[in-house]
Amino acid sequence: MRAPTPGQLPPVPQVRRAWYVLATTDELRAGAKPLKRSLYGDPIAVWRAEDGTPAAVVDRCPHRDVPLTFGCVKGQHLQCGYHGWEFDTQGHCLRIPALIGEPDKQARRVKAHPVREQQGFVWVWGDPDTPPDTEPYSFPYADREGYLVVRQTVRAEASLHGVAENALDVPHTAFLHGGLFRNDKAERNRIRCVIERTAETAQCEYIGEPRPEGIVAKMLSPSGGTVTHFDRFHMPCVVEVEYAIGEENHIVNAAALTPVDDHVTDLYSVVALRTRIPAFLLRPFVQPVAERIFQQDAVVLQLQTASMKHWGSARYVSTEVDLLGPHILRMLNRAANDPDAEWEPYRTELEMDV
Amino acid sequence: MRAPTPGQLPPVPQVRRAWYVLATTDELRAGAKPLKRSLYGDPIAVWRAEDGTPAAVVDRCPHRDVPLTFGCVKGQHLQCGYHGWEFDTQGHCLRIPALIGEPDKQARRVKAHPVREQQGFVWVWGDPDTPPDTEPYSFPYADREGYLVVRQTVRAEASLHGVAENALDVPHTAFLHGGLFRNDKAERNRIRCVIERTAETAQCEYIGEPRPEGIVAKMLSPSGGTVTHFDRFHMPCVVEVEYAIGEENHIVNAAALTPVDDHVTDLYSVVALRTRIPAFLLRPFVQPVAERIFQQDAVVLQLQTASMKHWGSARYVSTEVDLLGPHILRMLNRAANDPDAEWEPYRTELEMDV
Amino acid sequence: MRAPTPGQLPPVPQVRRAWYVLATTDELRAGAKPLKRSLYGDPIAVWRAEDGTPAAVVDRCPHRDVPLTFGCVKGQHLQCGYHGWEFDTQGHCLRIPALIGEPDKQARRVKAHPVREQQGFVWVWGDPDTPPDTEPYSFPYADREGYLVVRQTVRAEASLHGVAENALDVPHTAFLHGGLFRNDKAERNRIRCVIERTAETAQCEYIGEPRPEGIVAKMLSPSGGTVTHFDRFHMPCVVEVEYAIGEENHIVNAAALTPVDDHVTDLYSVVALRTRIPAFLLRPFVQPVAERIFQQDAVVLQLQTASMKHWGSARYVSTEVDLLGPHILRMLNRAANDPDAEWEPYRTELEMDV
Repeated sequence: MRAPTPGQLPPVPQVRRAWYVLATTDELRAGAKPLKRSLYGDPIAVWRAEDGTPAAVVDRCPHRDVPLTFGCVKGQHLQCGYHGWEFDTQGHCLRIPALIGEPDKQARRVKAHPVREQQGFVWVWGDPDTPPDTEPYSFPYADREGYLVVRQTVRAEASLHGVAENALDVPHTAFLHGGLFRNDKAERNRIRCVIERTAETAQCEYIGEPRPEGIVAKMLSPSGGTVTHFDRFHMPCVVEVEYAIGEENHIVNAAALTPVDDHVTDLYSVVALRTRIPAFLLRPFVQPVAERIFQQDAVVLQLQTASMKHWGSARYVSTEVDLLGPHILRMLNRAANDPDAEWEPYRTELEMDV
Repeated sequence: MRAPTPGQLPPVPQVRRAWYVLATTDELRAGAKPLKRSLYGDPIAVWRAEDGTPAAVVDRCPHRDVPLTFGCVKGQHLQCGYHGWEFDTQGHCLRIPALIGEPDKQARRVKAHPVREQQGFVWVWGDPDTPPDTEPYSFPYADREGYLVVRQTVRAEASLHGVAENALDVPHTAFLHGGLFRNDKAERNRIRCVIERTAETAQCEYIGEPRPEGIVAKMLSPSGGTVTHFDRFHMPCVVEVEYAIGEENHIVNAAALTPVDDHVTDLYSVVALRTRIPAFLLRPFVQPVAERIFQQDAVVLQLQTASMKHWGSARYVSTEVDLLGPHILRMLNRAANDPDAEWEPYRTELEMDV
Repeated sequence: MRAPTPGQLPPVPQVRRAWYVLATTDELRAGAKPLKRSLYGDPIAVWRAEDGTPAAVVDRCPHRDVPLTFGCVKGQHLQCGYHGWEFDTQGHCLRIPALIGEPDKQARRVKAHPVREQQGFVWVWGDPDTPPDTEPYSFPYADREGYLVVRQTVRAEASLHGVAENALDVPHTAFLHGGLFRNDKAERNRIRCVIERTAETAQCEYIGEPRPEGIVAKMLSPSGGTVTHFDRFHMPCVVEVEYAIGEENHIVNAAALTPVDDHVTDLYSVVALRTRIPAFLLRPFVQPVAERIFQQDAVVLQLQTASMKHWGSARYVSTEVDLLGPHILRMLNRAANDPDAEWEPYRTELEMDV
């Protein structure tokens, strides 16, 4: 571990052999300009060839370093805007204008990332040097009949770990989002938390949770009922909050997190809801409430990042009610630094006052 | 001494075992949000408990690094805005919502700085790890009857030493403030300067100085008279200019300098005046003139700082008419680096043309 | 060679023992404020004494580091705006107000750069510590009768080498400036390129080039004709494009490049034209076309610089149709790092499709 350098953000675990969402299908229509995206700070040109194939290449022409996103799509090729060099979806150099002879040589290629497109998302494999050994995450309720589905993309100035911990953390909701989910009451309810962790997933089940107060809860469950609540993290970038009240109300809020930079994270979220209230009545409320919650989180996450930058380190004194955050960090660190280390499944139970 | 690194500001002596003004009483009213201040770049939350006690703690929640100034005062406690942890004026952690059991542990505390409040200023001891062995400076004429007192807080982008030297320097006034105090005349007056320095104070007395020309002087002394003039620096952060013309006119301009950052300094100044002119007539002129002078100094200090940053060093070729600046720097360096070094009182006299 | 440091621009060859244009005569009129300029990032005060002598000194008062450009010209002297120190055109310190005794001492001087003024340009020798062993470049057609001469000064966020390569590069014109000079046609013309390089000059002659299409060409040559075309680089900072169609049309576009910073370059360009079209009709077109071309180049050069900064290096895979750029870089590197290295004249011929 590096010694703190005030003014510099602390390093984060970088898990490159994984799928990340770099664009939505909507953003990458046929004929669109190549999209300038990045992963852990490295620019990637995401583009779509004439025949519909999505592609992602390192955003740097080998000739003179100009970003390929400055250029344009020309048929099946991506063409650099400076000297007109052309590359195919695999990154091979197929044309160098003015040059007589074969254009394609190893040094003239750009590295291409594997790409998958599903459920309206363009997933890019983070490491162009190794082939993928998995397939991307599938959002479980994105296409399910009977569910109202709301998608949004937002950006947080925080590390993937900071965003994931925040998304799956219960205690902060009474303060940061006071009035929306929970409030900081003198009388609290003691509930039971069951934490289970494998190499791929960390999950917390909350048992005995009362129906929450606040407007979101009232929107969801006019009739009351028993609460089922799971928070899950799937390596290395998916958070899932599954919440049900009785049989009738079910909400699954999942998001794929993309490490744009070590300390900047995009969230591609899919909120899926099933309630007694018809979708057309519910829809106008879901988006504004989700945005308000996210904005409050974005502010605190940005302050957290700025503070870590000032001190050059994360102080991070955890207690046992930091249920998933420390597990997530351990999982990310292992995948980034020592993926073959032994890893025992883990299970624990504890109590918490909410 | 570090080798110059172009593009980086040179280091400055940091005197942490000392009192600095971090706020005025006016800024820290009961019920006010905690104030985000800093000392040598380190953020400090300055706040006031419900019973009126002023407090200052390191502005970083030990839990997740979020600045405590993002939170709010809750009775006698400062509460973090992320998870609701609560701290008292001594920095002890007295509540962790959701957690069952004792919240206060060493690792969960924030460091608290000793605080004194007097004459409308909130003084904070710079080192939270050692108890204070002195009391803060008292402005000599801030409360004196018969004096018009004007306070202002201004910020300069320069080191404490750069600001202190500038505030107590005579030769620059004919150029930077030409027309206000002095002018660059062909005919100059030769005066005598008596410099005395102890470990705590450096003083220069100017003998034989003529009544200055310019509008400030005319405002002060319509009837003329003998000039008495002292410039003083009190370790590590107070500058005092005492100036009298005859028996009737007396002005003491004192300022407490706060090293917000190594190269950013706040000045909490108190100008006290006694003249024949009634206060209600004088007051409208004092503030604008003081502001104009300060703005001119602020411009040159900022250029000086930017230049030192470019070169990565201070070139600083002093002559004997740099009367106090080099002494101030020596005093600060000793206090910062070698406070137990021997230190002989020093006295010298020389002549200067003003 | 330094290892790449992501986020830092790669170093460039700095040729300091050379003449660079730091101002135009128009900018440095008698009585003007001193001009703040810089060479490889080091600030230089360019000023004109009362008798008309142009001067250039390091922009840092030895007393307190304040830039001398904050001050003003006072007769034959440049006066610092803080304490009024005065320097002559050679950098000697001739006055320190308030000080009794001789002001000029070695430590109180500023370094002065040799200066030449010719053809409306103020040339400054880059190294204040060695006397010049050459004279500045003379623009060959700046004063020639029968030529329309258009001057302009523009800034590019790129290294001197990046700007010089771009200015003398043919293949990019069909893409970046498509429609102005050349287009990216399926049918291309095969031409011959003769490259000659000495220690001081690199030149490419293009043989067999057809009259270009596009509006610039039509403006120049309504009657058609044989094309003569030379691109030249004169060490360390002059680019020249000489172009003729038949006997009647002749254009020489020359520019002196100034390395303001390692990766910021000013171009002082002189376009000289002789055509059948009278100057008063031609002039309104030359400036806008030249500006449009330059703006397109400026965009790509800035992206190239930003990309090299991101990666911390220049990847730069050249092909044989990068005719002059690699030679220019070799010449600059030799002059910067090993000026006494042996250097054989070089000549080669090759073919290219335009």
